[in-house]
Amino acid sequence: MAGIDLWYDFASTYSYLAVMRADPLAQKTGVALRWRPFLLGPIFKSHGMETSPFNLYPVKGRYSVRDLGRLAARQGLPKFLLPVPFPANSLLAARTAIALPDAARPEFSRAVYHAEFAEGRDISDRAVLGELLAMLGHDAEAVLARTGEQALKDKLRAETEEAARQGIFGAPSFVTRDGELFWGNDRFEQALEWARSLAQKS
Amino acid sequence: MAGIDLWYDFASTYSYLAVMRADPLAQKTGVALRWRPFLLGPIFKSHGMETSPFNLYPVKGRYSVRDLGRLAARQGLPKFLLPVPFPANSLLAARTAIALPDAARPEFSRAVYHAEFAEGRDISDRAVLGELLAMLGHDAEAVLARTGEQALKDKLRAETEEAARQGIFGAPSFVTRDGELFWGNDRFEQALEWARSLAQKS
Repeated sequence: MAGIDLWYDFASTYSYLAVMRADPLAQKTGVALRWRPFLLGPIFKSHGMETSPFNLYPVKGRYSVRDLGRLAARQGLPKFLLPVPFPANSLLAARTAIALPDAARPEFSRAVYHAEFAEGRDISDRAVLGELLAMLGHDAEAVLARTGEQALKDKLRAETEEAARQGIFGAPSFVTRDGELFWGNDRFEQALEWARSLAQKS
Repeated sequence: MAGIDLWYDFASTYSYLAVMRADPLAQKTGVALRWRPFLLGPIFKSHGMETSPFNLYPVKGRYSVRDLGRLAARQGLPKFLLPVPFPANSLLAARTAIALPDAARPEFSRAVYHAEFAEGRDISDRAVLGELLAMLGHDAEAVLARTGEQALKDKLRAETEEAARQGIFGAPSFVTRDGELFWGNDRFEQALEWARSLAQKS
């Protein structure tokens, strides 16, 4: 079966758009997704950028909010909101997503992004994440406790290092099984096509 | 009739992809295009960037060459080449495009981009531009002489200032008649849709 790794950062606006449409799109095209949260911050820093490109170039940042608003509307999502502060600190959300079983990760990820970009909430807040976990039927205290374990912290760090090794420099990114990299929500369809054509060859 | 301004810089890789498909796409959707070459360099500088984002972030630059290669292939264009030096100095090409009558600008622009990104030639070279002009049936010497006139230099400077005023920070960009800005080859279709829906309302 065709497959793709979906790399996303919870602070990333265009990851939001990709994550919200990922499951229907993957099902429609018959491609299996692996959901891989990671942290873009350390990768930006390694390229000499201290904050989001949104903040580095205000004219581009303002345009992007408009672009995201238009795209969210086309996707049938609620009015797009930029949370304060922006970008959010996505560390705890990423650790929480990794602490969950694989099967629970997509639903939790959508809930985090909805809280962040449709409700403007601060996803670095432990209470916000606890509320989302409880809403989805998880034992919030137990899951959040796991985010403090060294093994789990190491796992997220290893994922981020793996992303950098694969040439990832932005989010969302899609990587097919032959290592082909596609960057950005705009390339999701093309990545799925690539994955399918790869599966047909093998 | 629906209309769009197509803003492009001759040094811009993704402008190449947009320009090569602009006329068929506009005809198919019934949207009139105004071809507006400008210079991205002064706009980048005003944002504190001294060179192309390609060169500032090498990992991103390498990815972009791969992305451009894939997109060129999908569009049926020749193998994508990055010219040396990159980015090209696009000043003379932009002045030449502006020196031509409006009706001759699209064909000349396609010829410049083909020389640059399909043949890897240096489009800052007066001889290269002269050859393209002659090939298209223009009086190359007369057109190139006009690029030295103050009025023409001022016209290009005014166009670049106008682009900045409209919030443009990258190329290609598309602006509809209500001032809505769309950035990037990936937004061409969406800009055309916007233009059509605007024309239907009026």
